[in-house]
Amino acid sequence: MSFPKTANLTIMMKQNLDHTIALLTRTPAALDALLRDLPEIWTLRNEGEKSWSAFDVVGHLIHADRTDWMPRARTILQFGETRPFDAFDRLGQVRESQGKSLEQLLDEFARLRSEKLDELRALNLRPEDLERRGRHPALGMVTLSELLATWAAHDLTHLHQISRIMAHQYREAVGPFGAYLGVMDCAGHSSP
Amino acid sequence: MSFPKTANLTIMMKQNLDHTIALLTRTPAALDALLRDLPEIWTLRNEGEKSWSAFDVVGHLIHADRTDWMPRARTILQFGETRPFDAFDRLGQVRESQGKSLEQLLDEFARLRSEKLDELRALNLRPEDLERRGRHPALGMVTLSELLATWAAHDLTHLHQISRIMAHQYREAVGPFGAYLGVMDCAGHSSP
Repeated sequence: MSFPKTANLTIMMKQNLDHTIALLTRTPAALDALLRDLPEIWTLRNEGEKSWSAFDVVGHLIHADRTDWMPRARTILQFGETRPFDAFDRLGQVRESQGKSLEQLLDEFARLRSEKLDELRALNLRPEDLERRGRHPALGMVTLSELLATWAAHDLTHLHQISRIMAHQYREAVGPFGAYLGVMDCAGHSSP
Repeated sequence: MSFPKTANLTIMMKQNLDHTIALLTRTPAALDALLRDLPEIWTLRNEGEKSWSAFDVVGHLIHADRTDWMPRARTILQFGETRPFDAFDRLGQVRESQGKSLEQLLDEFARLRSEKLDELRALNLRPEDLERRGRHPALGMVTLSELLATWAAHDLTHLHQISRIMAHQYREAVGPFGAYLGVMDCAGHSSP
């Protein structure tokens, strides 16, 4: 392995487009391998009240790919800071997921993600493009680099959430072992 | 879908052997899809100091499959509460992973998990077997059902951890968007 294990591992990374795309490429297959044909007690149950199930999260990832990341990247490239991003509807997937099976959503996510990454690559972004600025309606000034890094980190926050939602279903089944399972202590800070 | 979405979703599940095995079967492929050939900055970096990288976590899952779950299940079936489980070496994977690539570990995990699930199925456990009791060296009395539920939940706690470790690498790259990414707030309660 070429990465030196003895390096100072606490140094934070800058967004790197190749690294971002490498991660974004893998998420649909990882969720597919984890969730497809899994008993519905794992995939349709939530953490109580109006929290989300794994099914809901996959719907949200689809909705975000369709309406958030690449549309916002184009807004930055076209309008800079002069036009804020369109607001993101965090519940938009409820409408779009209705009547679909998880397997249909997983197929849709894989297809859509692949299309969106083709669009991203086709932009042929140069390093100076990544520093271009846009305006988030709530957060204010953000760069294209930050937006693209967030696309990848958003996948991870929802993988983190899905593993927590699923673990929650066995909260009682594990009995005293729960004390050793950190996921059971996660306070739901990644939901939704 | 046959699972009624309108049911009371907060009811906790009992361990169900089919559900447990369904989840345990999928983890190696999910980690493979997420991690194989990913740039090493995602897989070999940790969260600072002596925390674990995704590489370390996969090594830990292998070590736990080899020395923890099925050996402890056999201890319960053979000795009941009269003999406590052998202690688990949480750092055992460091030795075993040395000099291996992540790809080798992913292959090893898939092969070992498949073998261990074959062993589990070959036990032909009846519902009454699942209620049999063993003795954990620190936690005291636990049932076989709780042990097997924990095997599945342990996969999820480490998927939760891996997503957090990876997100940590983009903590600075996401800029102000970090406020919206719950995984960045996760206090590391699932490590190791």
